[in-house]
Amino acid sequence: MTLALDPTAQDLLFREAHTAHTFTDEPVSEEQMRAVYDLIKLAPTAFNQSPLRITLLRSRAARERLLPLMSQGNRDKTGSAPLTALLSADVDFHEKLPKLLPALPGLKDGMYAEESVRERSGSFNATLQAGYFLLGVRAAGLAAGPMSGFDAEGVNKEFFGDGRQKVLLVVNIGRPGPDAFRPRNPRLDYAEAVTVL
Amino acid sequence: MTLALDPTAQDLLFREAHTAHTFTDEPVSEEQMRAVYDLIKLAPTAFNQSPLRITLLRSRAARERLLPLMSQGNRDKTGSAPLTALLSADVDFHEKLPKLLPALPGLKDGMYAEESVRERSGSFNATLQAGYFLLGVRAAGLAAGPMSGFDAEGVNKEFFGDGRQKVLLVVNIGRPGPDAFRPRNPRLDYAEAVTVL
Repeated sequence: MTLALDPTAQDLLFREAHTAHTFTDEPVSEEQMRAVYDLIKLAPTAFNQSPLRITLLRSRAARERLLPLMSQGNRDKTGSAPLTALLSADVDFHEKLPKLLPALPGLKDGMYAEESVRERSGSFNATLQAGYFLLGVRAAGLAAGPMSGFDAEGVNKEFFGDGRQKVLLVVNIGRPGPDAFRPRNPRLDYAEAVTVL
Repeated sequence: MTLALDPTAQDLLFREAHTAHTFTDEPVSEEQMRAVYDLIKLAPTAFNQSPLRITLLRSRAARERLLPLMSQGNRDKTGSAPLTALLSADVDFHEKLPKLLPALPGLKDGMYAEESVRERSGSFNATLQAGYFLLGVRAAGLAAGPMSGFDAEGVNKEFFGDGRQKVLLVVNIGRPGPDAFRPRNPRLDYAEAVTVL
């Protein structure tokens, strides 16, 4: 056993998990999403900046605002998933740093006073959190369907009109439906991805 | 039980895991790093582009090249960790797409022919993978110490002289040493991070 994580958990999060392209109509509860969030919020970000914001499109009306902004190939599955989440980076994450990192009160008006620094660092750290989120959805026994094919500027304008959030990823969430999974594609071998110096 | 992931695995990956700031001198084996990679390579990226590259600094000589490029506060721990990994995005990830996504042979010279598209999309997807990697290190029963405080341009020049990789994160890896952990800082409440529409 080289890994400490037990094989069942390895399967749930990685080995048996696949991006889902169809979903059943079984609802995803608010309790489930709270449990996912309460798990993944603990994983690390730089200076605990925690810039990820999650917008859950539960109502039909909210979903309808998104559909025309999805690329053609992502529209049907996004329309039929029981839940769709917008993952975004909060450009003004520094406003919450006095709560998140009380030991360094100078960060908010120091290093992070500059908006371009926050945009770069916030997007990076929110993207790390998006990775945690996808595994967190799987930890709830649900399938995730992350998508990059959408009109990001349009989503920002439609859902975050004030420009203080930048969408990173749109994720369908639910139980996999019929023919939900495509065959697993090859991955890079260790020697292709890893260099030892 | 709202989550399908068992509590022991939740603790290992999230609840009891902390960013480590000191390490014992117990070595991290190549077998462990292969097991981490073989797990996290399975998690999703857009079009399976798999742009994350991992440079393991095993030799003293390689570590010495990195230390002057780390910020002052990250230098000592990076010098004493049993293993340090550079996580980077391969700007030329498209070269491997014929293997990674044989069903869409046009991607390499189509959408991804443009370097600026690859830089943006590759960095984003490699950052998702960096999130998977940090949890993968924990899955091996090891502690991770991710750091953003370094001279990125200097690291790129020193380790990726041809400009085809862009460093994202530097991660110390090992068993936690004395006083390895700082007290957990508060996280955002569900209602602060999540909006339901």
